[in-house]
Amino acid sequence: MPSETDRIFSNFKEHSVAEFFKKNKQMLGFSGKTRSLTIIVHEYVTNSIDAAEEAGILPEITVKVDEIDKDSERYKVSVQDNGPGIPKKHIGKALGQMLAGTKFHRYAQQRGQQGIGATGCTMYAQVTTGKPIKFISQYDGKTLKGEISVDIKSNTPLMQNVTEEDNVEKAHGLYVEGEFGEVKYDRSQGSVFEYMKRTALANPHVSLTLIEPSGERVQYPRSIEMCPPKPKETQPHPLGLAVSDLVDLAHREGPNVTLAVFLRERLQRVSDAKVGELAAYLNGQTAGLAFVDFKKPAKDFTWPEAESLVKAFTMVKWIAPESNCLRPIGAEHIQKSLTSILAPEFAAVTERPPKIYKGGIPFLVEAAIAWGGQSGHQLAEGGRGGDIIRYSNAAPLLFDISGCSITKSVKEVDWKRYGIDDFDKAPVSIFVNFVSVHVPYTSAGKQAISDEEEVYAEIKFAVMEVSRKMQLHLGGIRREHEQAGRRAAVLRYVKQLSKDLTELAAKGKADELQARLQNLIETKYMSQIMEGKDEAVGGEEGDDDGEDEGEEEGDGKKAKASKSAKSGKKAKNGNGKDAEDEEE
Amino acid sequence: MPSETDRIFSNFKEHSVAEFFKKNKQMLGFSGKTRSLTIIVHEYVTNSIDAAEEAGILPEITVKVDEIDKDSERYKVSVQDNGPGIPKKHIGKALGQMLAGTKFHRYAQQRGQQGIGATGCTMYAQVTTGKPIKFISQYDGKTLKGEISVDIKSNTPLMQNVTEEDNVEKAHGLYVEGEFGEVKYDRSQGSVFEYMKRTALANPHVSLTLIEPSGERVQYPRSIEMCPPKPKETQPHPLGLAVSDLVDLAHREGPNVTLAVFLRERLQRVSDAKVGELAAYLNGQTAGLAFVDFKKPAKDFTWPEAESLVKAFTMVKWIAPESNCLRPIGAEHIQKSLTSILAPEFAAVTERPPKIYKGGIPFLVEAAIAWGGQSGHQLAEGGRGGDIIRYSNAAPLLFDISGCSITKSVKEVDWKRYGIDDFDKAPVSIFVNFVSVHVPYTSAGKQAISDEEEVYAEIKFAVMEVSRKMQLHLGGIRREHEQAGRRAAVLRYVKQLSKDLTELAAKGKADELQARLQNLIETKYMSQIMEGKDEAVGGEEGDDDGEDEGEEEGDGKKAKASKSAKSGKKAKNGNGKDAEDEEE
Repeated sequence: MPSETDRIFSNFKEHSVAEFFKKNKQMLGFSGKTRSLTIIVHEYVTNSIDAAEEAGILPEITVKVDEIDKDSERYKVSVQDNGPGIPKKHIGKALGQMLAGTKFHRYAQQRGQQGIGATGCTMYAQVTTGKPIKFISQYDGKTLKGEISVDIKSNTPLMQNVTEEDNVEKAHGLYVEGEFGEVKYDRSQGSVFEYMKRTALANPHVSLTLIEPSGERVQYPRSIEMCPPKPKETQPHPLGLAVSDLVDLAHREGPNVTLAVFLRERLQRVSDAKVGELAAYLNGQTAGLAFVDFKKPAKDFTWPEAESLVKAFTMVKWIAPESNCLRPIGAEHIQKSLTSILAPEFAAVTERPPKIYKGGIPFLVEAAIAWGGQSGHQLAEGGRGGDIIRYSNAAPLLFDISGCSITKSVKEVDWKRYGIDDFDKAPVSIFVNFVSVHVPYTSAGKQAISDEEEVYAEIKFAVMEVSRKMQLHLGGIRREHEQAGRRAAVLRYVKQLSKDLTELAAKGKADELQARLQNLIETKYMSQIMEGKDEAVGGEEGDDDGEDEGEEEGDGKKAKASKSAKSGKKAKNGNGKDAEDEEE
Repeated sequence: MPSETDRIFSNFKEHSVAEFFKKNKQMLGFSGKTRSLTIIVHEYVTNSIDAAEEAGILPEITVKVDEIDKDSERYKVSVQDNGPGIPKKHIGKALGQMLAGTKFHRYAQQRGQQGIGATGCTMYAQVTTGKPIKFISQYDGKTLKGEISVDIKSNTPLMQNVTEEDNVEKAHGLYVEGEFGEVKYDRSQGSVFEYMKRTALANPHVSLTLIEPSGERVQYPRSIEMCPPKPKETQPHPLGLAVSDLVDLAHREGPNVTLAVFLRERLQRVSDAKVGELAAYLNGQTAGLAFVDFKKPAKDFTWPEAESLVKAFTMVKWIAPESNCLRPIGAEHIQKSLTSILAPEFAAVTERPPKIYKGGIPFLVEAAIAWGGQSGHQLAEGGRGGDIIRYSNAAPLLFDISGCSITKSVKEVDWKRYGIDDFDKAPVSIFVNFVSVHVPYTSAGKQAISDEEEVYAEIKFAVMEVSRKMQLHLGGIRREHEQAGRRAAVLRYVKQLSKDLTELAAKGKADELQARLQNLIETKYMSQIMEGKDEAVGGEEGDDDGEDEGEEEGDGKKAKASKSAKSGKKAKNGNGKDAEDEEE
């Protein structure tokens, strides 16, 4: 007789990653019709830019959206790029298998990284319209055409109608076309329209064309004729490397590679002299730390040895991580873009050195601020409110706004210190581009950056840096204007009061005066108070929240006291450790 | 000579889902030390409760956290349950392989659903301490012991030191123990401590014990001695089924099952008569819709036929979805829990009928409100502020607060209409439990519910319903208190003014009076204004934002005008369609 346990476990099954994401489409960003369409364009456009850059080609991309059926919210999306194309051998897996691709195992800065996105689009077409994705890949003198879908159960590509011909013009590029349901085209905040605009803003070397369902062509010609350097693979920096990363890396080596050689060859900034320093430190510290034999084969490296070594890493001095693997947009280009698109009264950009986060991963943050003009976004009640323009590796982040480390960092800034009373009601745009060889996204939908301590701190410092620039520039001027306005409002009451009271008080009766004054205030003023629109009258407003802000400097190892004149109590360095307290 | 394309694609690789989540641990919720520890406890505790309930056992769970090394933030976590245990054949995959388990393919309400969580913990132990998870599984008269880790590259379990003995006492249960790094124990908001408390709050039939690193035992004995009914598998409801779901389901059938039989057997609420109705509708509507032969084998069902049928589903009347697959906590239990834990002045709970969201998935929302006493959370500046207590299938959601549909729904409520001027500063707790056979989480970390239109609307309506109850109960009393407070504050100024002015005005000089009055106001009052703490003085506060709120009713198909007396312009029904406008 089968037991109860047998009954329960008769349900035990395995499922593929494609089944998982089919059932949880929202984790890929497919939730909401406008957003789903944007996610599709985002996946294709980032892949296209990555591919062209990898091949050293100035990217040129045309996105076309056609409405197939208004009632059923079905659209056709096609994307044509001028990249290197995808060879026959790989196109199936590139567009029809999740967790496959050229990027996941590399330690190089690219927009895509997961090997999920394009196949996610194939799956979305399939489950919303039942149709495969059509492709034309031109590469190495060949033209490959066909259709592709995903076998969801096994997470493998299904190809049909595949033909390959010679392509005498040696044209190159990839064309993909799909029909998608449960999507909608508009020009709202999270739309394809906005996505293309933001992509253009941060990618001045890319030529972008959007053909809308109405037939309108929206064009963003490139403003730089120079291809950025190819993404360079880098190696982990010893600082921030976890024990498990170090063991994993070491165990990949062949039997003849010693630990010393492994460290020198596979990590950044490790010289023979540095290995000597590490050995010297460990020899002096045998108590509590495992002995490390730097001459043993790296593949025999043990966990306790790795723990000792990671400890030793933190005790010697290091050169900051290589920055040539990171490709920022560049202050000049950001300034130009912001100026041309937002026409602000003032804009400032910051360039900061690379930092490291957990896992020894180098990153850097580019931040800019724009004030006035078209900065900020249009508020429903009129005027403009603070806007945060987020990017990771120059790819726009349009969704999951509140869950993103960039948003949190910006919101945590004590804006009053920079002359902005209410960020949500100021004509200001904050631009942040997070640049790294691995972006810690909160989910496979790649729309928000996770709250890693070092990342969060660095973004906040970068934003504070540009905010200080803005504050210095604007000086007290704007603030005086505001104060003058408030003063005038109060003085209107005072004038009226004075006039009325001259008569009243002349009669000399304090009681009657009080009654009348009370009446006057209640009629003119109290109605507002009673409706709860004037919370501060009782004077119970809390004090400043004592937010800890500070400036940091240095190589991400030791925090130094900062040169900031304005800010406060505790500084954190790039690795999130507390720095010395400092007072103004 | 290899081409450029060959060079680029030489990097093309596949990777396992375990590699993916190892590189993106934050997607499983492993970001931040306190949070990471809570995620570990969460995964084990939800599995334990699910397993015991599945076997009809009243759950009894002990969680023990021990500090191993303060400096390296390393803790040992063990969880003992009294569930059915896991047989030898399955324990490897259950604890050491992602995307494997008993829950993913079922259409039944359980806390876990992904088959990732426990293996995610094994992986986290491995990469932070290099150690396997130890387990003792007692089941069917056997005691199985061993250690387990994940082969990350292949996503397969690695077992070692496995022994199996007879267990004459026929004890049952699972014990797991792991050492984890990069974690921290405390009693903060997102801590294990808080997690256990919230689990107890929503699971009165579970007996929970937490043994803290200090040795302190925190006990939550069960308050009901009755096991909830076992989770019942259900079938999709025709409404909300996507074309692809319908095709997928039909194609699973054997060759002898006709479409009509498939519909009747595999979907909820489909009778022979209903099939007749659908056929009649489609016969009358041949233009534009594909002909559907209900006698053909279900496995030959085509996409265009499925499209016709999905259209027809929306044109006939349906009985509401079965609710016996959904296991709410129950209004009585929620009321009891809130009362005992928060000791509020007032609490109200709502019981609402099940609704359907995309994919034909039934769900229901339980909402409650508590006012006064220990409701809300402690504010730094004193007093208590609005708190949102979120659950999905009675499992607490502690993180990704702002990205969650529950949070968004609560924040979108126009609280002023319910007598709450500022939700963030009111002593109020909103309790929401989202109950469904499939929870649309935003990420694999399972801490936030995605913004599905129907889900969002239903949560908001549920919260509005309990808020109305609270408003009716409290009536104008609380508001009067507040007004009296404000009035007193203003009158303090009036009294002072009157006194000072009696003297001044007696001199009869309006100019001087004005100057003095101005001075008085500036000293006493203006400093606050100038610091921007009194925004309303200029009287420019915007109007009510005209938020669209409404009450909805019915079976999730047609919206009816509502019976709500208070609220506004547009109502949405459970499927998110606009209902008729209504005026007060």
